[in-house]
Amino acid sequence: MEKGRVEAFSDGVLAVAITLLVLDLKFDTGPHHPGLVHQLGTDWPAFAAFAVSFFQIGVIWVNHHALLSAAARLDRVSVFYNLVLLMFVCTIPFTTASYAALLRSGGNDERIAVVLYGASMMGMSVGFSLLLGRLVTRRLLVRTLTAEQGRATRIRFGAGGLVYPVSTVLGLFWPPLMLIAYLVIAGYYMLDQTPILHTDDRLAESAAEE
Amino acid sequence: MEKGRVEAFSDGVLAVAITLLVLDLKFDTGPHHPGLVHQLGTDWPAFAAFAVSFFQIGVIWVNHHALLSAAARLDRVSVFYNLVLLMFVCTIPFTTASYAALLRSGGNDERIAVVLYGASMMGMSVGFSLLLGRLVTRRLLVRTLTAEQGRATRIRFGAGGLVYPVSTVLGLFWPPLMLIAYLVIAGYYMLDQTPILHTDDRLAESAAEE
Amino acid sequence: MEKGRVEAFSDGVLAVAITLLVLDLKFDTGPHHPGLVHQLGTDWPAFAAFAVSFFQIGVIWVNHHALLSAAARLDRVSVFYNLVLLMFVCTIPFTTASYAALLRSGGNDERIAVVLYGASMMGMSVGFSLLLGRLVTRRLLVRTLTAEQGRATRIRFGAGGLVYPVSTVLGLFWPPLMLIAYLVIAGYYMLDQTPILHTDDRLAESAAEE
Amino acid sequence: MEKGRVEAFSDGVLAVAITLLVLDLKFDTGPHHPGLVHQLGTDWPAFAAFAVSFFQIGVIWVNHHALLSAAARLDRVSVFYNLVLLMFVCTIPFTTASYAALLRSGGNDERIAVVLYGASMMGMSVGFSLLLGRLVTRRLLVRTLTAEQGRATRIRFGAGGLVYPVSTVLGLFWPPLMLIAYLVIAGYYMLDQTPILHTDDRLAESAAEE
Repeated sequence: MEKGRVEAFSDGVLAVAITLLVLDLKFDTGPHHPGLVHQLGTDWPAFAAFAVSFFQIGVIWVNHHALLSAAARLDRVSVFYNLVLLMFVCTIPFTTASYAALLRSGGNDERIAVVLYGASMMGMSVGFSLLLGRLVTRRLLVRTLTAEQGRATRIRFGAGGLVYPVSTVLGLFWPPLMLIAYLVIAGYYMLDQTPILHTDDRLAESAAEE
Repeated sequence: MEKGRVEAFSDGVLAVAITLLVLDLKFDTGPHHPGLVHQLGTDWPAFAAFAVSFFQIGVIWVNHHALLSAAARLDRVSVFYNLVLLMFVCTIPFTTASYAALLRSGGNDERIAVVLYGASMMGMSVGFSLLLGRLVTRRLLVRTLTAEQGRATRIRFGAGGLVYPVSTVLGLFWPPLMLIAYLVIAGYYMLDQTPILHTDDRLAESAAEE
Repeated sequence: MEKGRVEAFSDGVLAVAITLLVLDLKFDTGPHHPGLVHQLGTDWPAFAAFAVSFFQIGVIWVNHHALLSAAARLDRVSVFYNLVLLMFVCTIPFTTASYAALLRSGGNDERIAVVLYGASMMGMSVGFSLLLGRLVTRRLLVRTLTAEQGRATRIRFGAGGLVYPVSTVLGLFWPPLMLIAYLVIAGYYMLDQTPILHTDDRLAESAAEE
Repeated sequence: MEKGRVEAFSDGVLAVAITLLVLDLKFDTGPHHPGLVHQLGTDWPAFAAFAVSFFQIGVIWVNHHALLSAAARLDRVSVFYNLVLLMFVCTIPFTTASYAALLRSGGNDERIAVVLYGASMMGMSVGFSLLLGRLVTRRLLVRTLTAEQGRATRIRFGAGGLVYPVSTVLGLFWPPLMLIAYLVIAGYYMLDQTPILHTDDRLAESAAEE
């Protein structure tokens, strides 16, 4: 599989998914609509969740980019794992909307919406880990990692597999906390968590420059 | 016709179509809405059909990619066949939604929805076969196939022309069976069904490496 | 202006616009919905208009591709004309939906919908002619045309400026005729109407091969 | 960070956002719908705002393109600023729709809609200024600017930070004035406001040609 078109397709899906988030923003402007001040007061979760999910998908894109740039080539299984990742990202506009609509409604439905919003991220995170694992174990990366390096990278990058369930549990206690946790996670992944995958290239480049 | 921009446009259409599937996922969160547990219980076909159609389009993309990578160039007729393929892919979000909404409703409408969902796939499959046939007969491929190889490839790749009608007939007897059949087909096409188109290149490469 | 990113952006807009057409296809599947056979009988204009507009945008993309491939570079004014072209293409899902919804309703509204559907195409056609004219007069093309060649190309390519108003007038007499006219026009533009822009390259190539 | 994929992702987001504007255009074609002439009379703000926002996003794309073409490379912070820019662009279809729906409604809601429409542009403008500032101060540009040149470029390019608030205040007095101001701003940014970033390259090229 040629890497370039996998990147182009993934970029397309991520770009569409991130932009579709705006469809969750909507005022009631029909006849006898409540005032906009009132609507902003009751609908703030939609705006907050829009911003948080936007940065989540943005950071997913940054990391997807970094991971694929470290791959020398992709096999069909890794392309399949990539589809798993993309499928869960595509559910984010839906689970974001459900979460925002039911936040502060209390009760059972709010908790289910929290779990679903968490499931989008957990599924995405599993897809990412499967993809990284495949690249490491099948030696599809540009550089060769020792077993120890491979394990360390997978743990560090795969932290999402741990923090998303934790965020979800926090959300069950106090749903808005989930948004804060997501922002913290986005900040964590905004930093490069796979530096080792890119090290050799930089060394090679600086060596070449000298 | 330059191949690169046909690929870019096709990638764009496939990426948008696959992402629009999420618009079929929706909870009723209005006042007096039924509980989410209840909605998940009645709307599970929407979620199952979302996942199945997502993988269908994902696999269509993988095969589209493989087919075009085997083409040396494209003529206007093959670009037209490509548009036929894309048009039917674009109907998938619509026919998926109809199928999911009418599944388990029984009666005539459910059967029509099954046929329409099948028609999206059959039309797409016809577009694919026309495109492959054109590439083979007009010698637009990177490598030259013998008549026998061309015929074998078209039969093997064009199997969809047979299995989609069969899935549809199965769906008429028991609609959920269609989803299972689609998953099996996606699995079949996830494997490379046009190896011969790519063989020469690999030989050439390995020869070059030695 | 770098040509590559103008192409990428235009491909993106055209791919999204062509895919959004599917949002006009929808069955009423609510409680007490009319049967699907009945809905297919009354909503056939939506399906016919979907297919016709899909091929219109597909052919617009083919020609956009051909025109830009003939350009050596773009200036800011040509990028602006390209935006005019894209803006009218983006209105096609809206005017297609209006046309399909009001077809056979008779009366004034049907005629206004016909005019609007025509306006999308006329505006797009004007954008194309402005773009081609700019490329010709500012010598932004890969090859240099004589004044006579430039004029002939602009007339031949700009035929849309004549045929779209004619289609619209036909549509005022019998609205479904508009769809047929659009199919004929798409067939006309499916063939290369700017061969002269690409001639030199081919000569150069074949010379190089000998 | 590799520049190419940042451009591809940004192009994707901008292309989707600009095309989603069409979803704000809609006629009521249900039973007992008001005539289209009447609807065009009352809904003209939707059409005017569609055209204005379309050109705003088009011009944003032109400038984004120009700015990134002047960058030698991007760091993670500049990618983050780019996400801020894109997030506000993604809100434009929403704030455009609110503005158009509430224009001429008078009262408090109209003023809030004006402020929100202004906020989309102001946030986008801040994102642009942060991105340019980062590129200048971290010396990520292709050419090196003197402190004075850097400051001049940032002021000239960052004018939007001043003119968007002014447009919004004008809109509070007479809302349609905002659309006219936006058109003027789009015209200003249609011209290259960062010529200095591209100068060296041209000099280098013309020197190379001699």
